[in-house]
Amino acid sequence: METISISTRTRTEFVEISSKVAEIVRKSKVKEGICVVFCPHTTAGLTINENADPDVQADILNSLNKLVPHNGNYSHVEGNADAHIKASLMGSSLNILIKNGGLVLGTWQGVFLTEFDGPRERKVYVEVAGK
Amino acid sequence: METISISTRTRTEFVEISSKVAEIVRKSKVKEGICVVFCPHTTAGLTINENADPDVQADILNSLNKLVPHNGNYSHVEGNADAHIKASLMGSSLNILIKNGGLVLGTWQGVFLTEFDGPRERKVYVEVAGK
Amino acid sequence: METISISTRTRTEFVEISSKVAEIVRKSKVKEGICVVFCPHTTAGLTINENADPDVQADILNSLNKLVPHNGNYSHVEGNADAHIKASLMGSSLNILIKNGGLVLGTWQGVFLTEFDGPRERKVYVEVAGK
Repeated sequence: METISISTRTRTEFVEISSKVAEIVRKSKVKEGICVVFCPHTTAGLTINENADPDVQADILNSLNKLVPHNGNYSHVEGNADAHIKASLMGSSLNILIKNGGLVLGTWQGVFLTEFDGPRERKVYVEVAGK
Repeated sequence: METISISTRTRTEFVEISSKVAEIVRKSKVKEGICVVFCPHTTAGLTINENADPDVQADILNSLNKLVPHNGNYSHVEGNADAHIKASLMGSSLNILIKNGGLVLGTWQGVFLTEFDGPRERKVYVEVAGK
Repeated sequence: METISISTRTRTEFVEISSKVAEIVRKSKVKEGICVVFCPHTTAGLTINENADPDVQADILNSLNKLVPHNGNYSHVEGNADAHIKASLMGSSLNILIKNGGLVLGTWQGVFLTEFDGPRERKVYVEVAGK
């Protein structure tokens, strides 16, 4: 299991980690298999989406903010209930396939940590399985 | 593959299964690898989120109920269309990493079955892979 | 890694791929393990939900359309921002368990590609791990 450390800079943002995940896969020497990415936080999540036009990331964040407003009527008193809800909507883990020692991603796909309660120091764990 | 049986008690609730999943991992004797948790139902899902303050679980359920009301205008005639939609939003499977024979979860993370059409008898399947 | 090719026919639809995934698992000769399904597109996703009553699929698509309208106020200029957002809500990968050489799915569960920006030619990748 390897760890990626990320310093997020604002309350909500996408941080691309594709190249860091790919580097861990390369170093593992696994040629064909599965890469699992896991986020150990409850106010951030993980998603795979377009990495070409940053407007897509902004649209996803804006849409999630409309659906789950930061200043809503929540029970949780820490002021970040929306971040917990958004984290569950995105999910805490990803599977990516490995072929020829590299990640199999679509042309436009990037791997992102989705920060919903930053800025914070975040960690993402990566496990590689295969041969 | 191991099975966890759960009796849910209300229509919508979070049921924490972290310790049951951890026990399956311990018994498997796998020290490093991947644990996959799978929900074979279409009106319940799985998520990982905060297990310290139960208000977070209530906020997630309330927010999902606002986004996808129980009494909406649906085609499905069984009266639980909202539960199917919420199940897809949460997802039917989780990956958790294994290190030193235990689950690698963040400080505040718990593993939950998310019931959206209870009370019911539910099952969750767990597979452990690694060495 | 095996590939499933899918021609979608409308802008938004569910395409069931359960039998194609099951066939890949059978051919792999893996008896017990994990099957990972991955969608390499950013405007389509994957989900597991009811395959008995097609109204459930319609309800999920309609609900997502209400939450994330096609003609909303988005930054991304290609006219498919909603499809990217819906793809992240559904997710890009699935885990399914394998037992006795077959997929372990619930009675009512089917595996679906969720098209949000069709019609298009889509691919889904499947990796099987186990013994």
